Amino acid sequence: MPITVVGSIAYDTVKTPFGERQRMLGGAAVHFALAASFFDDVCVVGPVGEDFGEQQLDVMRRRGIDVDAVERIDGGRTFFWQGEYGWDLNTRETIDTQLGVFEGFQPKLTPAALASDVLFLANIQPDLQREVRAQLPDARFVALDSMNLWIDIARESLIAAIEEVDCLILNDAELRQLTGKPNLVSAAREILAWEPASSYRGPSVIVAKQGEYGAALITRESFFALPAYPLETVVDPTGAGDTFAGGLVGYIAAHPEEQLSEQLLRRAMAHATVLASFNVAEFGTERIERLEGREIVARIAELQAMTQFSGAPLALRG
Amino acid sequence: MPITVVGSIAYDTVKTPFGERQRMLGGAAVHFALAASFFDDVCVVGPVGEDFGEQQLDVMRRRGIDVDAVERIDGGRTFFWQGEYGWDLNTRETIDTQLGVFEGFQPKLTPAALASDVLFLANIQPDLQREVRAQLPDARFVALDSMNLWIDIARESLIAAIEEVDCLILNDAELRQLTGKPNLVSAAREILAWEPASSYRGPSVIVAKQGEYGAALITRESFFALPAYPLETVVDPTGAGDTFAGGLVGYIAAHPEEQLSEQLLRRAMAHATVLASFNVAEFGTERIERLEGREIVARIAELQAMTQFSGAPLALRG
Repeated sequence: MPITVVGSIAYDTVKTPFGERQRMLGGAAVHFALAASFFDDVCVVGPVGEDFGEQQLDVMRRRGIDVDAVERIDGGRTFFWQGEYGWDLNTRETIDTQLGVFEGFQPKLTPAALASDVLFLANIQPDLQREVRAQLPDARFVALDSMNLWIDIARESLIAAIEEVDCLILNDAELRQLTGKPNLVSAAREILAWEPASSYRGPSVIVAKQGEYGAALITRESFFALPAYPLETVVDPTGAGDTFAGGLVGYIAAHPEEQLSEQLLRRAMAHATVLASFNVAEFGTERIERLEGREIVARIAELQAMTQFSGAPLALRG
Repeated sequence: MPITVVGSIAYDTVKTPFGERQRMLGGAAVHFALAASFFDDVCVVGPVGEDFGEQQLDVMRRRGIDVDAVERIDGGRTFFWQGEYGWDLNTRETIDTQLGVFEGFQPKLTPAALASDVLFLANIQPDLQREVRAQLPDARFVALDSMNLWIDIARESLIAAIEEVDCLILNDAELRQLTGKPNLVSAAREILAWEPASSYRGPSVIVAKQGEYGAALITRESFFALPAYPLETVVDPTGAGDTFAGGLVGYIAAHPEEQLSEQLLRRAMAHATVLASFNVAEFGTERIERLEGREIVARIAELQAMTQFSGAPLALRG
C-alpha cells in the first residue's frame, strides 16, 4: 500500500576519508523514498528551492516515486548540509547547515499523499510531524524518526508526536537521552509503557539504530537484534539511517495482508539493514540509484547465514 | 580437554550507578576460570600476595578449578584495581592500580598446567604471554586477549604474541588501533593475513568484543555476529570480557572431537555471550558463583530465538 514520506530534500556536501562530493542530492525524504521504492509506491512531501532541478527529481522519478508533492518555493534555496567524517566514520562534524526553504516549511499534502495508508515522518520539527500525522488519521502504520536537537529544544512536542505513531526509529544514544534510562532495553520499555493522551494507539515498536553495530527491535513481547552487514569499506554513512527506515517501512507497506507480526517486523529489519549497507558503500544516493532487487535478495540470504547458530545441547557442569 | 589460563588474580574496588563494592575477588584469570569451569577442567596460573585468603581460593575450588598454580608471594600484595563507571556504564575511569605481586611476575606452570591442550593467555605483558605459549607448544587451541596499553608500549611484542596463537579476542576499538584500519572487517582481514615468522599456525579466528552491542567472529571464510543478551539492568561490567572469553574457550575445549568448524565457533560465541550476560547482572563474581548450568542452557535458547529471522522471498521492484 502506498507510502507517504514527509521530510527534507537537500543538497549535501560531504567529505570522508575516501573523498568528497559537492552538493549531492540528499535529505531524509530522498534517501527514505529511494529505499522504500523497492517495495511499494512512495509519495514524497517536502520543499525545494529554485536551485533544485529536474535532474534531481528525475533520480526519484526513475524509481517510480511520486514527486507531485515536492513543493518548489519561488526565490527560495534548497536545504543545504555540509559535513565531514573522521577516519573511522564514527564521528561527524557539521560544518554548515542552511535551512533555506525548510525555514517556515508547511507540509502540503496532495490527494495521493493523503490516500496513503503508511506514513513515515522523517526527522523534522515534531509539531510539523503531528500536523501531518493528523491529516492521515486512519493510516495503518506510522513511523517516526527524530534527533537529539528536538529532544533538547522541543521535548514535550516530540513526546506527543511519538505517542501518535506506531513505530519509533531512533539512534540508541537518543533513546537513552529521551528517556534518561541508562540502557537500550530499559529506555525502550519506558516508551512502550507511555499511555497516549490522545485516541492514538501509542508506539508498539521501537527500533534502535546502532550505526556500525546494526540495529535492535523491541516490542512489548520481544527483543530482536541484527548486526550491520559487514563491509570492508564504508565510503559515506550520510543517509544510512533514512535508507534503513525506507527498507523497514517499505517492507511493512508491501505486506498489507499480514498483521504486524514479530516475523514480519524481523524480515523488515533485515531488509532495512541490507538497504543501509548498500547506501554507505558509495557517496550519497550513488549506489542505491543503480541498485537492483536481486542484489537485495542475495544480501538478505547472506545476512541470514551470518546470524544463525545451531543450539546443540551440551551437558554443563554445575 | 583441560584448559590452562594465565593472567591476573585481583582485588577490585568498583563503583557503579547501582552501588559499590570494596576489594571483591576479581582479575582476568578468575573471571575466565569461573566461566570456563562450566565446560571443562581449568587450571589457573597467576600470583597473589599474602593478603589473598583461602576464602577467595575456595570460590574457585567450589567450581572444581585447579588452583595449585596460584603462586603466593611472601611479603607481597595482591594486584588491586579501583574503578568507577559512568551512568550508562559505557565509560569507566581507573582510579587506582597497584600492581603488587604482578610486578616481576614470572609464570610457573605446574605439571597439570603444562598438560592442558587448550590455553588462554589473558591480558598480561605480551612477552610473558609468549613465554607461556612456548611451554605448551602442542596445544590444540590457544587464545589471547590484550589491551590498548600493550598496543601503545609493546606493539612489536604483541604482534609476535598474536602470531603464535589461534584466536585473538580484542575490543573492536583495539582491533582498529592495532591495525590502523578504520573498520572491524578490514582490521580483522589484516590480522588474518599476517604470516607468522615462527613455526606457529598464525591466527585463524578473530573475535571482536563490542560491549553492549555484542560480539563478532571473523575467520578467513566467514563473518558472524551476535548481539549482547538484552538486560534491563547492567550492574557491573567488570570482568565481562574475561567471562566472555571463558565461555568461548571453555566451549571449544569441551568439544575436542570436533574440528574448529564455523558451527562450533558460533555455538562457542553464543555460550560466551550468555556467560557474560550473567556476569554483568551483579557485582564482581557474585552472579557467576551461584550460576547453574540449566540457566545457561535456557538463555542460549532465548538468544537463539532473538537472532532468527525467516527469509520469506519477496518480488522487489527494480
